[in-house]
Amino acid sequence: MAILHSYPFCPHSRFARLILAEMGIGAHILEEKPWDRRLPFLEINPSGNLPLFIDEDGLAVPGPGIIAEYLDDTRGEAMGDRRLMPRDPVQRVEVRRLLDWFLVKFHDEVSAYLATEKIYKRFMPTELGGGPPDMGAIRAARSNVRYHLSYIGYLIAQRNWLAGDQMTFADLAAAAHLSVVDYLGDVPWDENETAKYWYARVKSRPSFRALLADRVPGMAPSTHYDDLDF
Amino acid sequence: MAILHSYPFCPHSRFARLILAEMGIGAHILEEKPWDRRLPFLEINPSGNLPLFIDEDGLAVPGPGIIAEYLDDTRGEAMGDRRLMPRDPVQRVEVRRLLDWFLVKFHDEVSAYLATEKIYKRFMPTELGGGPPDMGAIRAARSNVRYHLSYIGYLIAQRNWLAGDQMTFADLAAAAHLSVVDYLGDVPWDENETAKYWYARVKSRPSFRALLADRVPGMAPSTHYDDLDF
Repeated sequence: MAILHSYPFCPHSRFARLILAEMGIGAHILEEKPWDRRLPFLEINPSGNLPLFIDEDGLAVPGPGIIAEYLDDTRGEAMGDRRLMPRDPVQRVEVRRLLDWFLVKFHDEVSAYLATEKIYKRFMPTELGGGPPDMGAIRAARSNVRYHLSYIGYLIAQRNWLAGDQMTFADLAAAAHLSVVDYLGDVPWDENETAKYWYARVKSRPSFRALLADRVPGMAPSTHYDDLDF
Repeated sequence: MAILHSYPFCPHSRFARLILAEMGIGAHILEEKPWDRRLPFLEINPSGNLPLFIDEDGLAVPGPGIIAEYLDDTRGEAMGDRRLMPRDPVQRVEVRRLLDWFLVKFHDEVSAYLATEKIYKRFMPTELGGGPPDMGAIRAARSNVRYHLSYIGYLIAQRNWLAGDQMTFADLAAAAHLSVVDYLGDVPWDENETAKYWYARVKSRPSFRALLADRVPGMAPSTHYDDLDF
């Protein structure tokens, strides 16, 4: 069976879990702490980033975007209409543009700050940077998320899903990252009904169930986190 | 004719210029200053990153990795043996892993620091961050580059090119980023003969000529910068 090295509240790991569930690929989900930098893990994956997918034949595939491309290269064709990466080169540009938007820009401006400050630092040893959250970083992320929410609303006002008429990797990446922010209660959903409606559609999918069941020890989720009709 | 919005010493822009030259794709190379954030540019490319490729039919393709994938999707097959992205899914993982390594990790640890501190800040208005370089950032980048050089040497000791037996996007990305650092004289080539030999091979290619002809106004390149047998 394949293996996914991941961390429950790492937004990139959540994206990979959604892809596996949507594509019906069974995998052992193993926990790897993002701050640990264990030598055996670095030997398989020199850059040390999460998640890391190990296919049944032992091939190591590191990082969220590369995992998405690899799973599409090897199993996408068989998905037929439910393929998460379109075949058309123009649509592929749009999916990849939005993947980059959420995996890099949203991560750098919102989800990395909030996951690190509010979750990781509770469990990281002090010498690796653990401790109380940096409130400045949290305020910046809370301010930045509003702009991304309105960008999602802007896209969904013109299309059925983020990158076009079909659900793609772009929706899974955006929803995975937002789900961590939503756990923390930091998404101002009331500011954008269109974005909220899109997120409710993604989060109602069976692939999302395992994510909604995760809990940070000692920290309850926002009241609407696992409410499918929030 | 296609258009490439780019900046001469932006390492990502140099990567795209190398791809176009290797693939024989004619394009108008237009200068866009990375710090300008002009509204007409942001309207085509909301994330504002460079380079931006506009295909003959008007399609806008933003960012170095997405441009590489798009050009391979649309023109790769016709390249035959000279294709820069292999067909085999396992080899594609390795090319994409190294693309990510150089476009993200090397950029964040080395080339973004040096390009910004030593080149961009000379031309940026003060209110956008222009001014004298931050010597701490330069020292960090100069220290980090040694580790990347030894990683290149380690890979080339086992393979003909960075990702395998054929030259791929990975070699072009690595060489594009290194070329900016090399202009500034900050690559300690003497520490790794294997890496130096690989770079000499890439820089001798006709696709590299236009890059080697670029000059930063008021700043001469390192003595060996455009010497093909350095």
